[in-house]
Amino acid sequence: MSSQQGVAINVRMAVELERTEQVRSKIHIKNPLLRNALSEFFGTFMLLFIGIGIVMQFILSNEKLNTWININLGWGLAIAFCVYLCSKTSGGHFNPAVSIAFLTLGKLPLKDFLVYCVVQTIGAALGSLAAFGLYYDQVNKFAGAYRTIIGSKATAACFCSFPAFHVSNTTCFFDQFAGTAILVLFVCVIIDKRNGIPAAAHPLLFGLVVMMIGTAYGMNLGYPINPARDLGPRIVTFFIYGSGVFSYHSYYFWIPVIAPLFGAVAGAWSYTFFVGAHIPEQRETTYVLVDEANQPLKLAADA
Amino acid sequence: MSSQQGVAINVRMAVELERTEQVRSKIHIKNPLLRNALSEFFGTFMLLFIGIGIVMQFILSNEKLNTWININLGWGLAIAFCVYLCSKTSGGHFNPAVSIAFLTLGKLPLKDFLVYCVVQTIGAALGSLAAFGLYYDQVNKFAGAYRTIIGSKATAACFCSFPAFHVSNTTCFFDQFAGTAILVLFVCVIIDKRNGIPAAAHPLLFGLVVMMIGTAYGMNLGYPINPARDLGPRIVTFFIYGSGVFSYHSYYFWIPVIAPLFGAVAGAWSYTFFVGAHIPEQRETTYVLVDEANQPLKLAADA
Amino acid sequence: MSSQQGVAINVRMAVELERTEQVRSKIHIKNPLLRNALSEFFGTFMLLFIGIGIVMQFILSNEKLNTWININLGWGLAIAFCVYLCSKTSGGHFNPAVSIAFLTLGKLPLKDFLVYCVVQTIGAALGSLAAFGLYYDQVNKFAGAYRTIIGSKATAACFCSFPAFHVSNTTCFFDQFAGTAILVLFVCVIIDKRNGIPAAAHPLLFGLVVMMIGTAYGMNLGYPINPARDLGPRIVTFFIYGSGVFSYHSYYFWIPVIAPLFGAVAGAWSYTFFVGAHIPEQRETTYVLVDEANQPLKLAADA
Amino acid sequence: MSSQQGVAINVRMAVELERTEQVRSKIHIKNPLLRNALSEFFGTFMLLFIGIGIVMQFILSNEKLNTWININLGWGLAIAFCVYLCSKTSGGHFNPAVSIAFLTLGKLPLKDFLVYCVVQTIGAALGSLAAFGLYYDQVNKFAGAYRTIIGSKATAACFCSFPAFHVSNTTCFFDQFAGTAILVLFVCVIIDKRNGIPAAAHPLLFGLVVMMIGTAYGMNLGYPINPARDLGPRIVTFFIYGSGVFSYHSYYFWIPVIAPLFGAVAGAWSYTFFVGAHIPEQRETTYVLVDEANQPLKLAADA
Repeated sequence: MSSQQGVAINVRMAVELERTEQVRSKIHIKNPLLRNALSEFFGTFMLLFIGIGIVMQFILSNEKLNTWININLGWGLAIAFCVYLCSKTSGGHFNPAVSIAFLTLGKLPLKDFLVYCVVQTIGAALGSLAAFGLYYDQVNKFAGAYRTIIGSKATAACFCSFPAFHVSNTTCFFDQFAGTAILVLFVCVIIDKRNGIPAAAHPLLFGLVVMMIGTAYGMNLGYPINPARDLGPRIVTFFIYGSGVFSYHSYYFWIPVIAPLFGAVAGAWSYTFFVGAHIPEQRETTYVLVDEANQPLKLAADA
Repeated sequence: MSSQQGVAINVRMAVELERTEQVRSKIHIKNPLLRNALSEFFGTFMLLFIGIGIVMQFILSNEKLNTWININLGWGLAIAFCVYLCSKTSGGHFNPAVSIAFLTLGKLPLKDFLVYCVVQTIGAALGSLAAFGLYYDQVNKFAGAYRTIIGSKATAACFCSFPAFHVSNTTCFFDQFAGTAILVLFVCVIIDKRNGIPAAAHPLLFGLVVMMIGTAYGMNLGYPINPARDLGPRIVTFFIYGSGVFSYHSYYFWIPVIAPLFGAVAGAWSYTFFVGAHIPEQRETTYVLVDEANQPLKLAADA
Repeated sequence: MSSQQGVAINVRMAVELERTEQVRSKIHIKNPLLRNALSEFFGTFMLLFIGIGIVMQFILSNEKLNTWININLGWGLAIAFCVYLCSKTSGGHFNPAVSIAFLTLGKLPLKDFLVYCVVQTIGAALGSLAAFGLYYDQVNKFAGAYRTIIGSKATAACFCSFPAFHVSNTTCFFDQFAGTAILVLFVCVIIDKRNGIPAAAHPLLFGLVVMMIGTAYGMNLGYPINPARDLGPRIVTFFIYGSGVFSYHSYYFWIPVIAPLFGAVAGAWSYTFFVGAHIPEQRETTYVLVDEANQPLKLAADA
Repeated sequence: MSSQQGVAINVRMAVELERTEQVRSKIHIKNPLLRNALSEFFGTFMLLFIGIGIVMQFILSNEKLNTWININLGWGLAIAFCVYLCSKTSGGHFNPAVSIAFLTLGKLPLKDFLVYCVVQTIGAALGSLAAFGLYYDQVNKFAGAYRTIIGSKATAACFCSFPAFHVSNTTCFFDQFAGTAILVLFVCVIIDKRNGIPAAAHPLLFGLVVMMIGTAYGMNLGYPINPARDLGPRIVTFFIYGSGVFSYHSYYFWIPVIAPLFGAVAGAWSYTFFVGAHIPEQRETTYVLVDEANQPLKLAADA
């Protein structure tokens, strides 16, 4: 719009955090991919640091301190605030499934997608490790020296998903496919400008979507719906619990890595096909300048 | 306002999702009824797919994973996000009772109402079927080969309402009448422009209304307050549990279909009669352009 | 501002609910007190109809369906939506304590205050009666033919507060004084224009304040903090449970009627004395019209 | 901007609370430090009065009335509303850790920081004392004449944190360091103008951050993450429970006083280093005035 001759009303943003502004001028990263990768790493680290703490407070308290509602609420808020954290840099995916959906929508280059997947997984692994450190005394209290995947003293489920025996891997696949599809479908609803939802509310709404999914489809696997969130901590558990974390349940581990990728693409495009593409063109919001007699006002246009 | 000569401030909406824009240009449905019917179908499908999952996570975990608060929270959010999904197409009724209220308010043609009822019911049926698929392993774990309406292994209540013996059908009727009246009364409060609630907040508030109703009037029947939400899944249960789903409790099944229709109309108009019609005309919001001396500014009107 | 010569930007409100507009033109009540009294009556009726349902779902399900969190959430939302209902007529007090606070702040005439108290109490009584009707079958299931104030089958606490024996009436007085003071203090924070909270968010925030109070000071008496909410349903219980509802606990009944009135005034004015009166004058929000070179623009003022 | 010659659109704030305006004109405190100190004192008093009530309702009801979710919800809302209370005076820190972070960010002078610490601690002490008064009958019911720090009738944990034996003081230090770092990190995200979150939403979001922390890192110590909140009430407990409140757990008491100060600074600056300093300069929001033909409009600039 800079080439137009119209009168622009510019709303300037005052920036008052002067000391941080000085630091900013010295360390500001100009390379978008580098900046965004740092954000995705740090955001996913924070998300898992908080999120694994939530799950540990559930399991290690014998489900007495946190109950399922705290998991739903806590993870929803963790998503919301970590996305606020990165909303103006990478946008806050923290999830290769979200990133692949944006790749297919043409909103993320392939190179960025690949880099995101790597830093998200590393961030998730380190975040879960930090949570393990803060609750190390509690893990010892709960399980003593035991580090097991199943049984009454099992703690591996603090880190990533381990399905019960009665849930087949086929069900697991569709569970992760569907859960991620729901997530990404509503993410696309929220960010579609035609739906007119203010940008400042987006991160909070993303969090509420995850909260909703946890009340509906957490029983099979605990709704990881995020390859980095499941695989990153699982790599950490390999060093604590051994190779069983990968071989468990007929090598289930690849399902929460692969199924969300397909689900995300299905969710994103089902929004477009069923609803998004059919939203009628909206009348633009129009304000009319009127004089005291409530009559439309003529400005000295082209005077 | 296009015929007025005043100066309009048009706020243009930038649309950046280019790839989806290309798809849009190819598949955009111009027929409003067709577009809205597709939205109502898909939205009701999603609502029940999520909502039945919520109820199943309550029942099939023996009320240990989800407790009643998760049901309230989850259904509230499911309503909110499914309405966001369709807010710019059909508006997101998903409920023949809401549609009939809008019919009587003159906001929905009769033809549209009838079509909505059909697609809402079909969407609800298919959504509950999809939820059944995702939790099929859990149903088997919970009930084995049993498919019963009552008893400790009963699972039919995952789909639709089955009143306890001590609740009479008369009570059931008034329960559904009142619950739906509360819902539609507050829907009318929220959408009344005189109340000045921003449109982007409407779907979230609708969800909170349903959350509230679930904390107050869920004990008799589980607050279906929606003919499509109850009848659609009930048709599915006919093929799983047999004809008892209709004959149960002296053919109770018609009550959550009919009572909400009356309740919705009563709720909508009671708002108008008790409050809405009496809201005083509001002074318009006025902004005054002033100069540096804080004096009102004259623009070169009619120059 | 109508006498100023400045250029006004009027944002007109489109009203589209045409059928309700026709009704409005016929039944619109122009007398402000009559209109507001009708709103206060209807709003308090709805508040108690929903709110007593919430408490009944807690007590009559043996605290298994609703737990305390559902009470907090449900009552908070009931407050929020009932205030939305009446936000443009009476403002939605539903509580003589709130009304007396506004009386002392000079925002409500004495005559209106007295009328409000009466209609609020009647609305509360009738609302609780309606809730009793909807849960009549459940009361019978829970208590059989018993209608008692104390004991394992007591149901009188569904309607209004009955303190436990170990809580003295002095404690009760201060509990109701303090709870109502907290409520009204934060109501004054929310509505103080200097705090810049958008009007459309006020009702929701009022509800969250009540939710907060319920998590902190519900254990002594169940946070009635509202003379109409406690006295109205108590009058109903007189006809069900007998005169014990008044004589119980050394004629406790007057405490939740009188203590909130003092608490409300204390809360309202403590905000002014501790914080409100000391808020510095805010710089007005200023937007500067600039040209393409980002230079301040001169309009043809006084041309 | 007052020296610019541009045309300003001033949005004037109408102030209608006339009676409070009269009081204001008489008692308005002009000294910023005095005014802010009064706000910090009163706000911290209210926060602890409510917050200790929440914890007491949890402990004294044997965790049956309040469960952990009520603690999370209640404390989150208490933070939110107490910050709203002081948002236009001191800003509502109530926490020396938040204040020290702002000190290092250059947003709070050292003198103010020191005064804040003192009044916050006094306010916290008195607030907890007031809560003790309101629940005095319940403490007696729960514990009889016992006033103990540990054991089944222990009530000292109503006031401040007392770690279990299996949690080492090293873990305690990092728990408080990390919890406060998370708090302050997200506070900095919320208030960074580059993130575009409306000021009226800040207090609510602060509350949600604390809610989130409580679902993740409450198991070790109950998330005090605030030196004033822990030390103030602990001083009160000295007079009730004796010197054990300080010597307990190898003189643990200094950890929730000191660790949050370091955590807060780490959290604040990690936001800047990882994300804040790298946010790209945003294009300013631009509105273009157009005429009826949708062409940019020329105003009579520099006429």
